Amino acid sequence: MERTMSPAQLRSTIRTAEWKGPTSGLAPGYVQANLVMLPREEAFPFLLFCVRNPRPCPILDVLEPGQYEPRIAPGADLRRDLPKYRIYEKGILKSEVDSVSDIFNEEMVSFLLGCSFSFENALLAAGLPVRNIEEGKNVSMYVTNRVCAPSDPFSSPLVVSMRPMKPDQAIRAAQVTTRFYLTHGAPIHFGSPDEIGIRNLAEPEFGDPVTIHPGEIPVFWACGVTSQAAVLSARVPLAITHSPGHMFVSDLRDEELTIL
Amino acid sequence: MERTMSPAQLRSTIRTAEWKGPTSGLAPGYVQANLVMLPREEAFPFLLFCVRNPRPCPILDVLEPGQYEPRIAPGADLRRDLPKYRIYEKGILKSEVDSVSDIFNEEMVSFLLGCSFSFENALLAAGLPVRNIEEGKNVSMYVTNRVCAPSDPFSSPLVVSMRPMKPDQAIRAAQVTTRFYLTHGAPIHFGSPDEIGIRNLAEPEFGDPVTIHPGEIPVFWACGVTSQAAVLSARVPLAITHSPGHMFVSDLRDEELTIL
Repeated sequence: MERTMSPAQLRSTIRTAEWKGPTSGLAPGYVQANLVMLPREEAFPFLLFCVRNPRPCPILDVLEPGQYEPRIAPGADLRRDLPKYRIYEKGILKSEVDSVSDIFNEEMVSFLLGCSFSFENALLAAGLPVRNIEEGKNVSMYVTNRVCAPSDPFSSPLVVSMRPMKPDQAIRAAQVTTRFYLTHGAPIHFGSPDEIGIRNLAEPEFGDPVTIHPGEIPVFWACGVTSQAAVLSARVPLAITHSPGHMFVSDLRDEELTIL
Repeated sequence: MERTMSPAQLRSTIRTAEWKGPTSGLAPGYVQANLVMLPREEAFPFLLFCVRNPRPCPILDVLEPGQYEPRIAPGADLRRDLPKYRIYEKGILKSEVDSVSDIFNEEMVSFLLGCSFSFENALLAAGLPVRNIEEGKNVSMYVTNRVCAPSDPFSSPLVVSMRPMKPDQAIRAAQVTTRFYLTHGAPIHFGSPDEIGIRNLAEPEFGDPVTIHPGEIPVFWACGVTSQAAVLSARVPLAITHSPGHMFVSDLRDEELTIL
């Protein structure tokens, strides 16, 4: 797999099934996104949920019912250009597939939400440690005791990702990620995991545990998995999402999402 | 009128009709908002319009159908707590009233959008000129040749507000307003009005002309009037907005809207 191909080339290799793996590290510098597809009836309350919880659910693009070519990637087809999808019925995972062309219909609305890959590139560029990348693991994710603002039928606790750093690095990381407000922005907490309801850092609810070196503290960012938890909670008749780590790769550059 | 009353006190004097004038300069330091109320059927496409055009239409709060107590002002009543409302039918202004309790119904969805009053306070605090305030006028607003991303049936050219400054002040103003990304953020243009389709600065489409001193250039910010133009363009059966300058005063402090 050529890591430096353009987003359009990468999407093409995904569409033709030459590549069906995770997208982490591919087309570096371009924005990758979480995908959620919902029936029209659930679109307004879900959009409200995202608007009310912008840190975990930053909206990059929303399409009209039945549309599948996003504004942030002209020519793309959201039904076929992700390596892997999950299909849920009433909140139950029914199947994992590599195309949803057969079940996507005129009533489905697609949402693209920001993903932490964008700020991880910026952390690396600033010389800060990203332990999950160093160790070749999926980032550690935890369910917290913080509750997102609900939008009936969508509700969820806040899910966070964690990267361990020394205190001075954590401060620099807060500065660096502040710019990326559409890809989760600054950390929501650092230090004591107890304070946000996390019992054991070695047992993340999603992803893999990573090494925490002496002198390091855990730094927590709002995580896009929150949106998937909200979708499951609503038990809607049909919902489609990307499979974890198998994101949509857009034509937007990470820097285009920053406000300064 | 006591200028330094709290937002809750101010809303109370508005609700009891003790005050029915403009809200500029009242409850300084608290976020004031544009109001749009639309029938449920138009709520999703309008929310999409705002999401796609965050500079002119930054979303502060969206309520469920029939709800009128916003999260950003507990205890408030959006049907009565603005000094003046405009009622539109199919895009035509039908009346201007001081309460909409009689026509608001279970099908109406309320949107609160950011307003430039928040960053004007910050400009003043930074020692920068805000000519419309100096001259006791409404800010100059212009229709540009830039087109907002549409969301059928909503479309609009970008409307901008203008404040004249010297070049070094304009640079400082860009820095200061960048923090206020939920109240229009940084300028979208400065210098030549022609470039964005403005023929004559002395003849704004909305508001009043202001003095431009020698050595000053016009500095343009995206303006919330854009959302009202979009509502008119859609010719929906019923739409309610605030009357110009007669905003909703929330309990949020201006500083709570900044990301750094």
